Amino acid sequence: MSITFPTIEDLQDEALAATVQQRLDQLTKPQGALGRLEALALQVALVQGTTHPQWRAPQLVVFAADHGIAAQGVSAYPQAVTAQMVLNMLAGGAAVSVLARQHGLALTVVDCGVAQDFAPQPGLHIAKTCPGTADSSSTAAMSAEQCAAAIAHGRRLVQGLPGNVLLLGEMGIANTSAAALLMCRLTGLPLAACVGRGTGLDDAGLAHKTAVLQRALQRHADVQAPLALLAALGGAEIATMAGAVLQAAHERRMVVVDGFITTAAVAVAAALAGPSGSALLQRCVFAHGSAEAGHGRWLQALGVQPLLNLGLRLGEGSGAALAWPLLVSALQLLGQMASFASAGVAERSDGAGRGDET
Amino acid sequence: MSITFPTIEDLQDEALAATVQQRLDQLTKPQGALGRLEALALQVALVQGTTHPQWRAPQLVVFAADHGIAAQGVSAYPQAVTAQMVLNMLAGGAAVSVLARQHGLALTVVDCGVAQDFAPQPGLHIAKTCPGTADSSSTAAMSAEQCAAAIAHGRRLVQGLPGNVLLLGEMGIANTSAAALLMCRLTGLPLAACVGRGTGLDDAGLAHKTAVLQRALQRHADVQAPLALLAALGGAEIATMAGAVLQAAHERRMVVVDGFITTAAVAVAAALAGPSGSALLQRCVFAHGSAEAGHGRWLQALGVQPLLNLGLRLGEGSGAALAWPLLVSALQLLGQMASFASAGVAERSDGAGRGDET
Repeated sequence: MSITFPTIEDLQDEALAATVQQRLDQLTKPQGALGRLEALALQVALVQGTTHPQWRAPQLVVFAADHGIAAQGVSAYPQAVTAQMVLNMLAGGAAVSVLARQHGLALTVVDCGVAQDFAPQPGLHIAKTCPGTADSSSTAAMSAEQCAAAIAHGRRLVQGLPGNVLLLGEMGIANTSAAALLMCRLTGLPLAACVGRGTGLDDAGLAHKTAVLQRALQRHADVQAPLALLAALGGAEIATMAGAVLQAAHERRMVVVDGFITTAAVAVAAALAGPSGSALLQRCVFAHGSAEAGHGRWLQALGVQPLLNLGLRLGEGSGAALAWPLLVSALQLLGQMASFASAGVAERSDGAGRGDET
Repeated sequence: MSITFPTIEDLQDEALAATVQQRLDQLTKPQGALGRLEALALQVALVQGTTHPQWRAPQLVVFAADHGIAAQGVSAYPQAVTAQMVLNMLAGGAAVSVLARQHGLALTVVDCGVAQDFAPQPGLHIAKTCPGTADSSSTAAMSAEQCAAAIAHGRRLVQGLPGNVLLLGEMGIANTSAAALLMCRLTGLPLAACVGRGTGLDDAGLAHKTAVLQRALQRHADVQAPLALLAALGGAEIATMAGAVLQAAHERRMVVVDGFITTAAVAVAAALAGPSGSALLQRCVFAHGSAEAGHGRWLQALGVQPLLNLGLRLGEGSGAALAWPLLVSALQLLGQMASFASAGVAERSDGAGRGDET
């Protein structure tokens, strides 16, 4: 497989970082008192390359697809639920629909490879590479061509979207299996550390899922390159999402990562980006730590901390949507708070917090 | 001192809880997949006594006062900052002003006992019991009469506010000292576990603050009753807030607690409520875990978990405001998500997740 990936610029700009930090320190609050929100404001400023970062037209995109490995009974829910939930999202009844409405987020659902076909309708984007993947416990989930097509779909999708921030969501029965397989191979952690209960397996279900995934790992033990791993073990929604993340990073859009599956897409994208992988991660905000077992360890392996820890394990982009108001707050605080000087507020008695000191 | 406190009804309603839980389990998501938000929706339903809880006219109230103990050099900032920040909040330049605007929260600043007097202006409520407290390291911070008046002010304030939810904020140079003293006496934890750096003391400043607070504890070692402790060690904003919390709990309004100081007010209110203290806590949501050293331990002592952990240490109600969208989400998800039946989504293959099972 040969695919050219878009360039992703490193965001080193010490002068800009110093200017934004100075502004943060001049706002009417003790230095650092806004905690994570200050780091977030600085991060977005660097991604947007400006002292006055702004959000424009936030896009919440749910990437949906089916997985051949579902036939092995690795999920608590039947495969038909993927298509049913796509329709539920479009009808406004899914959790992510409710949250997108609450926060004014444009919601697009992408059929990347659902087993059922949909009639065209508002909010639905068709970018299908297969009617569900093949079963990775016995063969490659996708052909090299399908995988490349999915990545290209994701890139084109983002090229066609307005705005400067992409919130990731996904839907696909059995996709925690695909994500766990990718995690195992990309991080080198043991399979047991990567597998979780997904939508709610009991102990027997978890043991069965682990055994199935073990077979898939053995089947593809000789596969090494990230792109080949994605084709062998991944899913159409993960590949499409990886393409979308690569394009978003290239365009210096912020990427808001949801839970376990979207983390898989970002980790794959970072691996595909090679030496630019760390620059790609500079564009990412990890919205929440999922209750899915492997997610915390994966975030740790990536060296990132999530904003929220609410015990969510739903996917759909629900955690990304829930974190969105914090991202809005970070920029509004930077942009709208008064400074000590403008508000006539005294600084520290000992002068240590003066914003004009450096 | 003799004050009558309002009754606070216990919220035991197993039938209502079962109905709401059944509704949560019928929504199109795996059971429990919305984590903390499901518990939150259930809590609010019980407080409001309805299967369809709604937020009405949320009120963010910032209780401001000065503290005599500030003269001992326990804060990194001069006392004048309390009044300056009150004006900054009213002018729209403080962090809490920005966040209240973002979320459409009505913002009221209450002068409970600021050393400076303010001209009447929109958004400012004058309920002054003293021009700052006395220095608790040498005498009682408030007289019994001042303390009782502050509590009464808080109760009347809430009686005059619309809506069914009160978000707590505060401003007062040196009020982490008052809160730490109350924490030490109410929880029985050693002083060192209760004292923190406040707005940003260095090591020497922290040691000095600890020594001053030690003197205050010795000075009032014989004081035992919660009301007398509040007068001896507390602050006018903490006493007024405690009254507001008691009234809000009586009226079955939800109370959204911010950081260390507002936790002090709630803990005092719970102590004042005596056997109804746990019923009072049923109405409370703890918005965030502050970076102020004692806060995490106090939440643990109260047996509660905060929604957010963002390293905030600002007060003002900033954490309560940041958590607000999550509280909105919890009720909108309960009220607006489709059920498996209404959306035509299949349930678990093994039937274990069927909402019609009990």
